Amino acid sequence: MPKIITISREFGSGGRELGRRIADELGWAYYDQEILHEMAKNTDYSKEYLASFTESGPVRLMPITYAHSFYHGNQGAFDQSVEVFTLQSNTIKQMALKSDCVIIGRCADYILRDYHPLRIFVYSNMASKVERCLARNEEKTQGLDEKAVIKEIKKVDKRRRKYYEFYTYQKWGDRNNYDVMINTSGQDIKALAKMLVTKVMHEEDQ
Amino acid sequence: MPKIITISREFGSGGRELGRRIADELGWAYYDQEILHEMAKNTDYSKEYLASFTESGPVRLMPITYAHSFYHGNQGAFDQSVEVFTLQSNTIKQMALKSDCVIIGRCADYILRDYHPLRIFVYSNMASKVERCLARNEEKTQGLDEKAVIKEIKKVDKRRRKYYEFYTYQKWGDRNNYDVMINTSGQDIKALAKMLVTKVMHEEDQ
Repeated sequence: MPKIITISREFGSGGRELGRRIADELGWAYYDQEILHEMAKNTDYSKEYLASFTESGPVRLMPITYAHSFYHGNQGAFDQSVEVFTLQSNTIKQMALKSDCVIIGRCADYILRDYHPLRIFVYSNMASKVERCLARNEEKTQGLDEKAVIKEIKKVDKRRRKYYEFYTYQKWGDRNNYDVMINTSGQDIKALAKMLVTKVMHEEDQ
Repeated sequence: MPKIITISREFGSGGRELGRRIADELGWAYYDQEILHEMAKNTDYSKEYLASFTESGPVRLMPITYAHSFYHGNQGAFDQSVEVFTLQSNTIKQMALKSDCVIIGRCADYILRDYHPLRIFVYSNMASKVERCLARNEEKTQGLDEKAVIKEIKKVDKRRRKYYEFYTYQKWGDRNNYDVMINTSGQDIKALAKMLVTKVMHEEDQ
């Protein structure tokens, strides 16, 4: 069975970079936007449309806030969300079982639980997240000042948490749902990647 | 300045073993009971008496439950607790600054915060903790059946949490207070030790 690493991460914590470095060092497949691309290939929907129903989409399309109570709202959007989640889950399973891989976000830790992935959660303090966002000029925070970046970080993470908790019935960021949790504040992402690669390689030696 | 690793841990999670292995592999000093020994050397108190006021002592001597409210209880025991904590803090600082080291428990992550230790928190699920306690025949759980072991694990961790939160004003086990959090459930402690050793050694290479 292929080996799988899942990366859950706070926005701006460097989780994606960490995942990419781990995949590169191990020579494993790396799945992030690739999942959306694969989903779009297999349906008539565009990537943009599908994205709007996932953890990275705008909050307005996400009926999660109503979904756990009796829901009278936009049933169509709600059904569509669940449909996209199901499509995404199936896509993730298919891709993960092809070869050893690192998967970013998308509740993959939960979706792939029967395959015992190494579940990593990446986080950092706000100062460090703001600094990373400003330095990287990421799409979501481009041109924003520090105050606006903080607001955006909180918004993105709130959405990730709600999305995760709605679909997994687990608490996002609760240590019991992860194998290793990494605080990237003041840490060198390269050193952290090496650390995790060592763990995987040492296990392969056993 | 010496490099320091602090290990906070849930009872039965294998944190002590992990710390010992890391220290051995790195050739660093390892401080656990050694701290109590050093404290006893520098005072007229016995190790047992001192231990009764620390995180590993029996709960009955620990006035923490009253300490944050207006305290009418045993003022002598309360003063003694604070005095022992101060002695322990000074001892930990002295020992930590002598050479690179790994320190187990005792709020060392907080006490040594100005020296930027690598703060590790070790935890695991209850089944795994029970299994480890039964296999190791630890002093605290010797001769107990599974149900009693679970009760003891909860008791010890409740005490550690209260002790930590009283003296540090931080939440025990909250990810923001640690650099790496390790779930030992189903994991090989040796592989985890190698992983952390790699991180430290990679940093030394920089």
